[in-house]
Amino acid sequence: MTPSDAAGLKALDRDHYLHPFTDFKALGDEGSRLITAADGIYIEDDGGRRFLDAMAGLWCVNLGYGRQELVDAASRQLQQLPYYNSFFKTTNPPAAELAETLCGLAPDHINRVFFTGSGSEANDTALRMVRRYWALEGQPEKQWIIGRDNAYHGSTVAGMSLGGMAPMQAQGGPCVPGITHIRQPYWFDEGRDMSPEAFGKVCADALEARIQALGPDKVAAFIAEPVQGAGGAIIPPESYWPAIKEVLSRHDILLVVDEVICGFGRLGEWFGSVHYDLAPDLMSVAKGLSSGYLPIGGVLVGDRVARTLIDDGGEFHHGFTYSGHPTCAAVALENLRLMAAEGVVEQVRRVTGPYLAKHWKALERHPLIGEARSLGLIGALEIVADKAAGTHFDKTLKAGETCREICFEFGLVMRSVGDTMIISPPLVITEAQIDELIALATAALDETARRLQARGATISATKETPT
Amino acid sequence: MTPSDAAGLKALDRDHYLHPFTDFKALGDEGSRLITAADGIYIEDDGGRRFLDAMAGLWCVNLGYGRQELVDAASRQLQQLPYYNSFFKTTNPPAAELAETLCGLAPDHINRVFFTGSGSEANDTALRMVRRYWALEGQPEKQWIIGRDNAYHGSTVAGMSLGGMAPMQAQGGPCVPGITHIRQPYWFDEGRDMSPEAFGKVCADALEARIQALGPDKVAAFIAEPVQGAGGAIIPPESYWPAIKEVLSRHDILLVVDEVICGFGRLGEWFGSVHYDLAPDLMSVAKGLSSGYLPIGGVLVGDRVARTLIDDGGEFHHGFTYSGHPTCAAVALENLRLMAAEGVVEQVRRVTGPYLAKHWKALERHPLIGEARSLGLIGALEIVADKAAGTHFDKTLKAGETCREICFEFGLVMRSVGDTMIISPPLVITEAQIDELIALATAALDETARRLQARGATISATKETPT
Repeated sequence: MTPSDAAGLKALDRDHYLHPFTDFKALGDEGSRLITAADGIYIEDDGGRRFLDAMAGLWCVNLGYGRQELVDAASRQLQQLPYYNSFFKTTNPPAAELAETLCGLAPDHINRVFFTGSGSEANDTALRMVRRYWALEGQPEKQWIIGRDNAYHGSTVAGMSLGGMAPMQAQGGPCVPGITHIRQPYWFDEGRDMSPEAFGKVCADALEARIQALGPDKVAAFIAEPVQGAGGAIIPPESYWPAIKEVLSRHDILLVVDEVICGFGRLGEWFGSVHYDLAPDLMSVAKGLSSGYLPIGGVLVGDRVARTLIDDGGEFHHGFTYSGHPTCAAVALENLRLMAAEGVVEQVRRVTGPYLAKHWKALERHPLIGEARSLGLIGALEIVADKAAGTHFDKTLKAGETCREICFEFGLVMRSVGDTMIISPPLVITEAQIDELIALATAALDETARRLQARGATISATKETPT
Repeated sequence: MTPSDAAGLKALDRDHYLHPFTDFKALGDEGSRLITAADGIYIEDDGGRRFLDAMAGLWCVNLGYGRQELVDAASRQLQQLPYYNSFFKTTNPPAAELAETLCGLAPDHINRVFFTGSGSEANDTALRMVRRYWALEGQPEKQWIIGRDNAYHGSTVAGMSLGGMAPMQAQGGPCVPGITHIRQPYWFDEGRDMSPEAFGKVCADALEARIQALGPDKVAAFIAEPVQGAGGAIIPPESYWPAIKEVLSRHDILLVVDEVICGFGRLGEWFGSVHYDLAPDLMSVAKGLSSGYLPIGGVLVGDRVARTLIDDGGEFHHGFTYSGHPTCAAVALENLRLMAAEGVVEQVRRVTGPYLAKHWKALERHPLIGEARSLGLIGALEIVADKAAGTHFDKTLKAGETCREICFEFGLVMRSVGDTMIISPPLVITEAQIDELIALATAALDETARRLQARGATISATKETPT
């Protein structure tokens, strides 16, 4: 691409494109980076600069870029039958096959799929499924949904309502009624005055307390990500999920697990629910389902809910034009076939996940890092002003955003959530590429420390470093 | 496809795929039709049977099936950069170009686009944009949205809340707060005791009355389809839109036009808003934008709202992983390029729209048909028991659904909405193919009449037929 072509595109972008989750004015002043190509775990900008994409696009390009098999799967289906609907008693081969393949990968008690076009639409669908379920079960008053602060379940009004992102709710409300939120199991920020083990149980106690406050016969479901993604790659204490499951089971409350980020190998299993043994009633999926090559999502429906919706529900008045889109389904099918054939999930569980864990953890030796955590191929770094106290920098210093921009300068895409730096690389990343990622991250952290100090920040790295 | 392959796929479909807007149990008992291929305006099932697809998939395959240029556009982009996000100050060439192309096609005062993955997500986005706009304008109490009974604005909880489909709301609620609905301009079912002209004004009076009841300073926006699609291809009286516009303008209420069905040539203009001269503040789009080959939607934002969101809004906390998806954008771009190069919209306006209008109207001579209406390439037939009175059959006879199933038997896809039969064929349909469509529809109506009479229905076709 010539510089003038690039400049032209950037001008079109500035003048016409309202980007997601963006300050339009600030971006207009600054201008966008133009990403023009990608291959493997690397993306490239208009100037030919390469970046190690440690976010896999946006937690989605699990198989990496440039997979010709996925291009071919799309082309074949586009030529054969690019689109057809599934509304009026019709189906198409890729949608039927994908439904079966997904159920084959899911835990045994999950045998039905409702397709959507995105994770937002999937969570939006899950909301109405659980409410419909209880209405059909003769308990129409069992309608409350409990979510968690700082959870992310998409950006439709319902997704935003289920999620716990305060800035989204402040702008996007009023929310869908009947949804409430409990605290998140974010030990580093909220639980350091006790052990992770004790804190996990405290968080589950918050669920119990909320259920008691609402009335157990009024609560339809609890929704959660196995590991919170957009909230900051928050890995719950080991005590958390068993305690949560016990509470839900005791009160006969459904569990909706948002697998949009954790699904399809991120945690070293096909689903985060398998890693944590969650036995969810519903799982929402998207992103990694197609490695993001084409948009597709869905809700995997366990037998308990499915039987009621099927046997007693009559017509389910819900669906999307692109539910079961043949081309998107064909690409998802090929993506899952490749992942299985290449043992991608096992590789994460047995090789690259443990390898990342070991070397990522070593970043806690860095003066800026209060905690380095990872599970499978999701990880986070807590940038802190004071290692001993675990306190973050003053928000006005924008430490996380500064680090993110420095990462770009250094050729690394790492996301910031406040002052938490996040990675979620393509699952095909190799050990050598993990070394490269960590070297880039270390250099970027060093430079971040320099710039923060140049702005007058004090860094108290007095905590003993783990060995 | 061999019969055993087809049987296998149908079994997978039955056992695992929860179809949109479907009675799962009934479909499981009956089994799905398997659509395996398509070309031009025809789809084909596993047995090699061809059907004239008078619904263009689901109001979306505007350019028809089998367009190699769209396959090639997808392949090229999938190889180059299948996916990248637009969240963190990044953009990609197809998204930037598509934003500019869309704004070029839209009315002059519309110069910004927010991309989504579907029409549902687009309307969901429009809802929060109008509320955000008034909050930023210092009128946070201006939050009510007025929609219409029997309107369709998608199937997210917010889309369903904006729409006026009672069965959806009965299952999917509670709805998003602050949305109310007025009567629809459905002259045939609700206004036959007066002229269409008078009825159009009565419907606009309903808007005025609702605004007065809510308080004009409490009403943020009115949302409507130019021609109601899923509600029954309801073409408003000519007096309707000018009267609505006058009311909105007088009270300074924003107009959101849902162009998901009417956009991209359906009414013989690039947008339904152009046909009716609506000058909307926001337009939601999807479907025909990519001819349905890949999922993509968006909100086109007029200068008034855009300026406030940009200049005063700070970060807009909303967006989707697949906002500006490069591959979907590339296909949409090529789709729009082909439509322009081939003069598809002009062809609808000058040739095939008028041709359909003339021959479709002649179906009013059929004993079953109370009204045959069309505009551009959208049309409806009202199946009635009594032509003079304009009354429908008893619902238990399922006249519309019966006709739809007979159409399938005869090789025609025509949708039923209650006892209203709908067409929305690919925009590339020729005059000869319109003849074929009408011949098939006529044969199907004859057979429908026979079967209804065999079930004991009385058909009173005493009304004078138009000449």
